[in-house]
Formats: sequence, structure tokens, C-alpha cells
Amino acid sequence: MSYSLGDKFKVTVFGQSHSQEMGVVIDGLPAGIFIDKSFIKEELNRRRPGKNAYSTSRNEKDEFKLVSGIVDGYSCGAPICGIIENNDNRSKDYSNIKDSPRPSHADYPAFEKYNGYNDIRGGGQFSGRLTAPLTIAGAISKDILKKENIFIASHIKSIYNINDKKIDISKLEYNDFKNIREKSFPVLNDNAGIEMIKVIEDAKNNNDSVGGVIEIIVFGLPVGVGEPLYDSIESKISAAVFSIPGVRGIQFGMGFEATKMFGSEHNDEYYYDNGKVKTKTNNHGGAIGGLSTGMPLVFQVAIKPTSSIAKIQNTINLKEKNDTKLEIVGRHDPCIVPRALPAIETITAITLLDLMMLGDFYGTR
Amino acid sequence: MSYSLGDKFKVTVFGQSHSQEMGVVIDGLPAGIFIDKSFIKEELNRRRPGKNAYSTSRNEKDEFKLVSGIVDGYSCGAPICGIIENNDNRSKDYSNIKDSPRPSHADYPAFEKYNGYNDIRGGGQFSGRLTAPLTIAGAISKDILKKENIFIASHIKSIYNINDKKIDISKLEYNDFKNIREKSFPVLNDNAGIEMIKVIEDAKNNNDSVGGVIEIIVFGLPVGVGEPLYDSIESKISAAVFSIPGVRGIQFGMGFEATKMFGSEHNDEYYYDNGKVKTKTNNHGGAIGGLSTGMPLVFQVAIKPTSSIAKIQNTINLKEKNDTKLEIVGRHDPCIVPRALPAIETITAITLLDLMMLGDFYGTR
Amino acid sequence: MSYSLGDKFKVTVFGQSHSQEMGVVIDGLPAGIFIDKSFIKEELNRRRPGKNAYSTSRNEKDEFKLVSGIVDGYSCGAPICGIIENNDNRSKDYSNIKDSPRPSHADYPAFEKYNGYNDIRGGGQFSGRLTAPLTIAGAISKDILKKENIFIASHIKSIYNINDKKIDISKLEYNDFKNIREKSFPVLNDNAGIEMIKVIEDAKNNNDSVGGVIEIIVFGLPVGVGEPLYDSIESKISAAVFSIPGVRGIQFGMGFEATKMFGSEHNDEYYYDNGKVKTKTNNHGGAIGGLSTGMPLVFQVAIKPTSSIAKIQNTINLKEKNDTKLEIVGRHDPCIVPRALPAIETITAITLLDLMMLGDFYGTR
Amino acid sequence: MSYSLGDKFKVTVFGQSHSQEMGVVIDGLPAGIFIDKSFIKEELNRRRPGKNAYSTSRNEKDEFKLVSGIVDGYSCGAPICGIIENNDNRSKDYSNIKDSPRPSHADYPAFEKYNGYNDIRGGGQFSGRLTAPLTIAGAISKDILKKENIFIASHIKSIYNINDKKIDISKLEYNDFKNIREKSFPVLNDNAGIEMIKVIEDAKNNNDSVGGVIEIIVFGLPVGVGEPLYDSIESKISAAVFSIPGVRGIQFGMGFEATKMFGSEHNDEYYYDNGKVKTKTNNHGGAIGGLSTGMPLVFQVAIKPTSSIAKIQNTINLKEKNDTKLEIVGRHDPCIVPRALPAIETITAITLLDLMMLGDFYGTR
Repeated sequence: MSYSLGDKFKVTVFGQSHSQEMGVVIDGLPAGIFIDKSFIKEELNRRRPGKNAYSTSRNEKDEFKLVSGIVDGYSCGAPICGIIENNDNRSKDYSNIKDSPRPSHADYPAFEKYNGYNDIRGGGQFSGRLTAPLTIAGAISKDILKKENIFIASHIKSIYNINDKKIDISKLEYNDFKNIREKSFPVLNDNAGIEMIKVIEDAKNNNDSVGGVIEIIVFGLPVGVGEPLYDSIESKISAAVFSIPGVRGIQFGMGFEATKMFGSEHNDEYYYDNGKVKTKTNNHGGAIGGLSTGMPLVFQVAIKPTSSIAKIQNTINLKEKNDTKLEIVGRHDPCIVPRALPAIETITAITLLDLMMLGDFYGTR
Repeated sequence: MSYSLGDKFKVTVFGQSHSQEMGVVIDGLPAGIFIDKSFIKEELNRRRPGKNAYSTSRNEKDEFKLVSGIVDGYSCGAPICGIIENNDNRSKDYSNIKDSPRPSHADYPAFEKYNGYNDIRGGGQFSGRLTAPLTIAGAISKDILKKENIFIASHIKSIYNINDKKIDISKLEYNDFKNIREKSFPVLNDNAGIEMIKVIEDAKNNNDSVGGVIEIIVFGLPVGVGEPLYDSIESKISAAVFSIPGVRGIQFGMGFEATKMFGSEHNDEYYYDNGKVKTKTNNHGGAIGGLSTGMPLVFQVAIKPTSSIAKIQNTINLKEKNDTKLEIVGRHDPCIVPRALPAIETITAITLLDLMMLGDFYGTR
Repeated sequence: MSYSLGDKFKVTVFGQSHSQEMGVVIDGLPAGIFIDKSFIKEELNRRRPGKNAYSTSRNEKDEFKLVSGIVDGYSCGAPICGIIENNDNRSKDYSNIKDSPRPSHADYPAFEKYNGYNDIRGGGQFSGRLTAPLTIAGAISKDILKKENIFIASHIKSIYNINDKKIDISKLEYNDFKNIREKSFPVLNDNAGIEMIKVIEDAKNNNDSVGGVIEIIVFGLPVGVGEPLYDSIESKISAAVFSIPGVRGIQFGMGFEATKMFGSEHNDEYYYDNGKVKTKTNNHGGAIGGLSTGMPLVFQVAIKPTSSIAKIQNTINLKEKNDTKLEIVGRHDPCIVPRALPAIETITAITLLDLMMLGDFYGTR
Repeated sequence: MSYSLGDKFKVTVFGQSHSQEMGVVIDGLPAGIFIDKSFIKEELNRRRPGKNAYSTSRNEKDEFKLVSGIVDGYSCGAPICGIIENNDNRSKDYSNIKDSPRPSHADYPAFEKYNGYNDIRGGGQFSGRLTAPLTIAGAISKDILKKENIFIASHIKSIYNINDKKIDISKLEYNDFKNIREKSFPVLNDNAGIEMIKVIEDAKNNNDSVGGVIEIIVFGLPVGVGEPLYDSIESKISAAVFSIPGVRGIQFGMGFEATKMFGSEHNDEYYYDNGKVKTKTNNHGGAIGGLSTGMPLVFQVAIKPTSSIAKIQNTINLKEKNDTKLEIVGRHDPCIVPRALPAIETITAITLLDLMMLGDFYGTR
């Protein structure tokens, strides 16, 4: 079903941008797992807006409560439900778009799909705000993966035409990434980061927006996670990643660049490194045939420029069935890349934990 | 489950490259659908190898039989099982790779996952040959979609560094693509096609291989196909596409290019065209918020260079636990792009039909 | 997954008997359905305890809120989450059973399954109290079915050895059942009801408990609901019904009695009744081959005597690993049959709506 | 989906009674399992008809082949497909029933559901013959369970009004059942068996049929198999069992009898037996709260009298829309209980293996 992710570790999200509450139901967790609320809080803070000049000034507190599934701090085997109340809902901001779909938002197809009954306030069920409750499940997943020595790192690879330091995916080291999580703007090259922020601020000042690319690296995955064909590690991750609003592409390892390489260049030869099987290069990005190979899993995600811009745009009036103009008021991120980054990490963590459980790398006993 | 695709229209594949038989079980089809065997044959021929200089000389006849689910030519509501017998299995070709995993093939992670019990012959359960029975389901799906006025077109967008005629995704016309299906090498610019074939043949002569990019365009999808979040049209299609061997990336609409555009450039404004809602541009590629918008659905798929090359390569011996060299003998496609193209079409057709059924655009009553 | 019911109409429950909140997430409902809160309240009241002498004196208010999925009273296509807060949790009542599993409760297998981390308070995740949030989903389902002219009726067929008026399942009339829903003790023969209540009260006075049989009749199902084999109407309903605590058996139509009939007696002959196909008898109980036949669907459910009794019982001490005695204190229903009845109705309604949607008898468009 | 059973261990059936082939696809088995073909053959023989006077004289050879998923006798991780060809299809036998639905067969609801396109020959997709390919999956499942010291025993508890020796479900011993599997008519009391056969033969001579009750006992299940609520062991088994044609009821432990017991009688007290937790009685039948308790799992299944009888019956003509008479010719079992017994065992084995895998009692690593 559309709002549930995972086969054995199952995460169901509910809520809309402006519903009274949003939440997540986490089913399939073993009993006896310590649920670290402070880490959940920390992760929620990473995606929270209003922290700086280049994101929306909306004040989303994202205070959460865990209302089920936990006894004395430990999971009890029943589903954990985490809930976030929606407080700062200025629904009046959206009154003018009721009949005038915002360009490149889901408003129009949703209007058709739901016969006009969809929740238009704040993007309703299509809002990126649903990644807030999802983060609760992501934090719990990351915590478990960490105990299995699996780490999910990420950085902003590019914003518009500004690139972070280029990574050689064949020479990835965990140490290069372990501190990036603490940065307010997660790039390897902070000077590039300053330029990126400048680009975002310029876009905002121009009533415009920009996009960018996020790169994810997973260290420590055992060999063989993922299943052939439809539950391949790339299938599962890509499906999950495309559920995050604004994603337009994903590539693993050398991705589209691989199409411009000869097989003899792209193939990754095996060798023994102190008894451990490795590949000399990592053009495959850690996954072959849908299975993890033990090399770091690497993929990049394209995020489009924010669709909500303050410029006046052409659109239609669905009631009067004619063309019209629209000015979107309200507070919007001029660039969602920094906030999409923890969401992509989150969905990656949930998906990998599910695949670990499906493949019996991690279990309830 | 790993070998089953779809939620309401469910397609289960069985077989390995060299198993006695391969097949597909198709569940969820309405009763009373005429099953066009000649169209299935036609589709199987499109992906069959051995048709030209640039593909493997293996003689896979791919003769199929439909052994259940059909009475007097029409579906009866029970699952349809299509079976292809494997005849031309030169299993001896693979004897030398039993302990020496081929670079960039699934051999090594599969060895670990299955404790050495996986089928090594011809790539076993990881072989692209499984797309043959899948094609049976794809042909039936395409036939149904066609009756709903939905058409899936495709072309080879690039091979190595040679590009087909560039398409403006904002000005897609079905007529430009309706004849491409008949071409032995499906490109819009036949001169570019000749160059591409030359690149492939050169690679073959160098004991090497090349990859490329496939572009898919779907005309005629109604508005609202796809579900929010995890059953988004991009999620479902990307998951399906990554199950095809060799896929390394996928992007919708402007994809990674979108990250270098401003919102004001990337946004697609709505207008009425003779009472029909359209967007002036189609940078979104026909899908927003996981839902189809009524504009043509466009996506590109990156296919890596064939991993099997005749050059001698470094690898390891898993039994002796040391480094060694490997020469892959046998008959391999120097480029799988032309044969991946109908497979990508097939999996797209199956996925879209499933989403149509999930969203009640098509049903059994 | 264990806490989610349904394939297309999906109902996920969370919470334990004494968790801070319990709730239900309802996914798959069409947009534009009016959600009748007063009917939900009415249904919750039917299963609420503390209304009379023969049920527990616990004061469960079961006040609910709907926190998502609804805009201006109508479903918006996003999941509806209904939440019930737990107020009257006297957790101290359960302190003595932490190491001493209560006979015929899930305490012991749960202790083993969850390594002692399961929630012991009030039965935790195994409590019948989880049928409270489920009732929210059931009420919404019943409301939809009602609009499709489908009605679920039920009565207490027996308590201990006292039987309600015997029903001829071949002569079922909706009018005979339409008022039974209003009764505080839903039997056809109120004198039998008085005797049943007496049996329950006697059991209570003896620190004991009793069970009984519930009969469900569904009027108005169209022909062909249900799928062959594993999604048969009997498969789906029985699976759902056995999720209700205390259920020990289910039979459709003549059920176990059918085994003592000849085929010539049991077979139901077809005839035309004013152009409508009917069977002269209804020994099949409205379902053949997993499909509804258009005749009333009839099944009976066996409910065991409440496991919590005030008598001192033998049990073990799991910590000390020896035999011991246990006195269960607290407030318990001496008979759960009256409260199980709306729960069985609820789960039947949810299951039938899901099957209607799976079989395209009801959809989102 | 309707033809697939299981969540982690997934068994998909295809075929109709008279389709060219019938088969089963078995997905989720670990690699490295020896597949014992002779045991599969043995199990197929147990359900094969034509072995004696009281079953149909149809000659179904049920020769099978395993066409995928096996290398050198061991599972390779890919789905195993088992196929049975249909040879003895006297389709002409069914010509007269095309428009005249047979009483108590699925003909009529199937006609409505599939708009007349369903396969009428031999009951089509509703035929008990589909339990033949299922038996292949069942034999493999039983073999695995046996290695885990889990044994599924069964006997015919009654035919019409003749009862086998009554079993005390609180004193079940594996030794009492270990030889019953070899019997041609599996009862504990062979004299009762002779009477039962007489009843069946009498029914046959009267152009009639009879039903009966099957009892299943599972020895050796570990504690905690099954999941709360919707994946309870009773939910999963009952759903699977109702997919077998002719089943009308199921009860666990004391079942419907429990409704006539006081709680103090029905409750099963715990004690330590040489350090192992047991219950003094087994009225719960080995499952509480949906979880196995370590006591033998016991349930009974009601099988209706065969619907195909040679007596002339009243029915309707769907084309002419009037009442008519029908004489069913052909070869039918006067009692399907003896042949349903291995089918119920089979589906129980598949379901338990799936639950073992879901609960991480058995895995692929």
C-alpha cells in the first residue's frame, strides 16, 4: 500500500501537511531494542526548517511522542507509533490556490485523482512534511544499523552549478565522512558550501529556487544484502528514494557515466586484501545483481528546484476552466536539498534494515 | 517477494539461464481478454539474440507455450503460465568460472549469499535471460494498454559517446515514434545508429563492450495514475527497471539536468488546450507527486557496458583464497542496450498496468 | 504484516492495552467519503464495557479523535488515523503476574517470543482492547457497505448451554434482524437472553467464566465477491476472525453439521425467483468455491470462556523455574461474547470491503 | 494475490483441472536444501485418486517434473517450479453443464464473476485437482519441518456418523500417530475405518456422497510461532485450510465444545515437566494469542459431502434463464475426505514453514 514501506520491517506513515497530527507506525522491530529518544530528537532537528537564512521561516517544532510499542524504554514487540502534532498551520496562506494548481506541484493530478477532495493545505498528503514522522522510523533504523557496524553518510554533491569536492568512489573511507553529519551545511569542502549557500540566497532574493544532487555512501553492509530481480537493493532503494518529494533521478556507482565507459574500464576486478574480498575499483557502487558486494554502497540523487516560488506564474482555473495567473505567497525553502538530505538517509536506513531482515542478516530472535 | 512483481496484477518469474524451463505466472488479469500469441512471439523476437553482428551468436529460439489460464484463446481468470524451454545450454562454457567470480557479475555476492549453491551456469538466477519469460507478460500488458490508448515508445538515446537525435521532451508527438518499433536498431537518426553499431562492433573486435542510455516515452496515460509516497509512479517504475540486469541509473523528465535549473525555468506552467489541461513544457516528465499528469511520461535508463568481456581479467579463486586471472569464453553481447530496450518496455508495461489496476483505472469488472 | 489487515483496503492497528494511546490507520479509502463520527461513537459504545452487571467494571471511555485523512468531514485520500487515549490504566493490578503466566493467556508464549520484553500490563499487545481502535475502521466500513445495500447482522447464538431461537439458514430475512442491533443483549429470543445473562452472572459469582457462539449473517452481498484459493471469502473472513481474542472455531453454512449429511441433502439447488438466481436451501451459507453466491452469508464463531478468572489457579514462576499458584485480581468480563460480537462484525465489515475492492465491486473512481 | 500463499516462503499455484499443465512456483527456500524427489512422489501418491473402490476411477498419473531452482539435487536459491501435465482430460464429460450450474459447485458464482469466461471443464480453477501441484510444495515443506523435528500427523476423525477412536487432545503422543501415515485409510481404529468405507460405498451405490472430519496434530513446534492479531497461527492456518475445496469449518483445541465449558474447566494450567514448560491439559490446542505454546497443535476440519452426485438435480439454465434439471455424468469421489487429508497436511506444512520463517525460527542463513 501506498503509505507503507517495507516487507518485514514495515513503516506506515499518516497525516497531511496541515492535519491535526502526523505520525508513523513501525511494525516488525524485535522486542528488547532500546529506543533512544534523544537520537530521534537529534535527527528531527536535522530536517527541521527555520534554522537559517536559506530555508523556510516556518516554525515547525516537530516535537514528537511515542505512544505505543515501548515499555520502560525498550521495544515490546508491538508496533511503535510516533506522533508529531501540527501547530504552526497558517492554512489561510493556501486559500488562493484552491482552484489554481501550482506549477510543478501535485495539485492538479491530485485534484483529478481525488475528485477535488484532496487536502490542498500545504500540499496535503504530498507534502515533504511527511518526512518528519518518517524520521522517527529512520532514527530507530539507523541506531540498529549502527550496532551492526553499518553507517550511512551523505553530503551535498552539488547545488545548481556549484560542486562539492569530487569523491573517488573507489577510495571511500569512513573517516572522511564521520564528521560531516555535525555540519550545519554538510559538504566536504566548506568553501564550496559557502558558494552553494550564496547561490541559494541569490535565488531566494530573486523569488526563485534551485536544486542539487545528494550523494549517499553506506559503509559496512555485509555481502549479499538484497534479493534477485524485484527486491534488488537498487530496486528497493530507488523506490523508497522516489517517494521523497522533489527527487528526479538516482544512479548507483558510476551511474550514467558508466554508459560512456568500456567494459574493460568499468569492470571491477576482485582481489584479496588481508583475506577479505575487495574490488580494486568500485564503479559498481557496492551492488551487483541486486546484491551488496561488501564494497561501500554509493548512489546519487537528483533534487529539483523547489516548485513553490514567489514569482507570478501562469496556471489555470479549474472551476472556471480558463487560463489565469498565480502568485504563491507563504514561506518556502528556496532550496530543499539540505532538508532532503536527512530524508534520503532516513529512507535508506529503513530500506536497508528491511532488506537485512528479509535476507536474514538481522532478525527478531 | 523477490521474483514477483506487482500488487494487483502480479507477475512471477521462475527459471535460471540454464534451467530446464523458464516461465512466468501472470495473476490478476480479468477474464475474457483475448491473448494474442502472435504479438507475444513478435515481442519475444525483439529481444532474441543472434539476429545480427553486434549481439551474441547464441541461438535462443525462445519458443513459448501457454499452459494454463486460457480457454479458447481468452483468459479465464486463472493465472496464465507461459513457459520457454532452454535448449541451447552449453553449460561447459562456464566450468572455469565456478570458483573464480567474473568481475562485475553477481557471481561473488551470490556465492556468499547462497553458500556456493547458486546456479553458476550462464549467470543462473541473475541472468538477463529471465527477461524472456517476462516478455510474455509484457506483451499481454502492452496489448491491454494499447486498447486503453496507451503506447510505450522507446529509442536508444546513446551508445558510448554517440547520441541519437536529441528529443525535446516538451514537444513529444506519438507520430515521431510510432514507426521506430519496426527498426532493427531503434534510433530516430539512422546515421547515428550506424555510428553506434560501429562503436559496438569495434568494442567486440577489441574483446571489449560498451553501454548506453535508453529513453522511454509513454503516450496516453490518464491523469492520476500512481499513488502518493511509496507507490509513486516513479517508485514503481524505478524499482521494476532496476530489476533488469545492467541498469545503473534512471531519471524522469529533466532528471539530473533539473538540478542545474532555476525553479522558474524548471516549473511547467498549466494552460488549457482546447479544454484539455496541458503544461507548456514537460520538464517534470509526466509525473508530479508520484501521479501521472496527462503529459507524456518520459524517463531515461543507464545501461552499463556488458560485464562479460573476452579480455583476460584479474579475479580471485574463492576455493584457494588467492588472486588469479580469468578468461571468459563463450558468446556474449558486446552491448546489451539493444536487447535491454524491449525488456525495459516490458517491465514498464507490466508496472503501468498494475498501477492502473491499483488506482481503479482498469479493472476486472 | 501482523498488525495490518487487508490488501487494497488496509487497516493497521497500534497500541497495547495500557499504552499511552491506541489507534488505527486506515489506508485505501476513496476520497470524498463522508465520515460519520456519530456512527463511529455509536459502534464504540456497543463494545464498551462497564455497561451492565455481566461485563467488567473497568471504565473505558473510548473517546476517539480522527487526526488525519479528513478535510471538512470528508476523506481526502490520505490515510485516516483514529486515536483512543488510554486513561483508566490501573497497571498495578498486573504486578503479580509478571513472572507467573496466567493460564490460557498469551503471557507464556509471548514471554518466550519476546524474551520477556512484551508488555504484560493488561495483556499488552494481545489484549481484546485493540478491538476498540479497530471499531473505528469497522464503523467506516459498515457505513460504506450500507450504501452498497450490504448489511451485517449478528446475534448471540448460545451462551454455555443456553441457545437463542434456532435459525433456519435457508430462510433468512433481513427484517428478522434489523432491530437486533438496538438490543442491549442481542438475541432473537429475549427469554433465552435472560437465561444467558443469568448463566453469566452465576459464573461471575462463582469466580468463573463462560463462553458462547456468535452467528453473523450478511445480507446483500453481490455474486462473486471473494477470489479462488487463498483469497476465498472464507479464507479472508476466518483469518480476520481468528485475530479476535478468544475465538476457537468458525464454520460457514451448515459447517460441521454438513459432515453428517449426504450430498443429496446438503446440495443447494438453483432456481429463478422473479429473474433472480437463488438456491432453495442455503446449506452452503452463501459461499461456494470461495465466492459469494448472492445468498446470505452465514457463519458461526466459537468464543471460549474468559481466561481471566478469580479462582486461584496453578501456574509456574518463570524466574524461579518452579510451580506456583496465582490469583488474578482485577476487573474482568465473566463472558466476552457480548463484547466480541461487535468486534466480529467489525472485522467482517473490514474484510468484506477489502474483498469488494480487490474484486472491483467497489473502487476509488 | 489469490493464487499465492505465504509471506516469506511463497507458494504460487497455476493451472486448472483440464489445463495443459498445472504447476507450483516455490519462492523463498534457502539455497542448499536437498530436494527429495522420491518423497514428493510418495506424497503425490497419497492424494492420487483411482486407488480404491471409494474414490474416483479417473486415472490421474500426477507425474511431475521440477524444471527450475535446483542444481545437482539441491535448491539454488531461485524459485523451484514443479509441473504436472494433465493427460486424462475427458473434457466432453462436462459439455452438458456449460449453461447449467451444478448445485453446490462454484459454477454459478464463477460464471457471474468471470462473465462466462471461466474454465468450466472439471471445475476449472476451482478444482481440487490444484492440490496436486501444491503437494510438491507441501512435500518440500514437510521435509524441512522434519529436520526441525516438527511432524504433522492426521487421521480421519469421522465419516458421516461413524467416528474414529476418540482422541484425548490433552494426552497426545507422537508414537500413536507415527504409523498412521502408511495406512491406506488413515484411522486409529481400523474397525471404524471399515465401517467408514462401507458408508462411503453405500453412498456411492446410492448415487450420493458423504463428508467427514479430519483431525490434524502437529508435534514439535517451538514456542512462539505465529504473530499477534492478523498473522496468528490460527488465522494463517484457517485461511490456508479454507482454500481447500469442500472445507466448511475449522476449530482449534476444544473448538466449539469450549463454548460449553466454564473457564475453570477450559483453562490449561502450567507446570514444569523436567524443566520444560507444559500445560496439564491442552484445551487450547497448542495456540494462545495466535502463538504456539509448545504443546501439540490440534485442529479439526469439516469436509462437506462431495457436490458432484449422480442423482438428477434441479438447477437453472443461465442462457435460457429458466429452471431445468441436470444429471452429472463422469467419475467422482463419493467422499473426498481421504484425499483432502493429505491436502490439509500439505497446506498446514507450507503455512507453518512460512510462519517459522516470518518469526525467524528458520532462515536462509
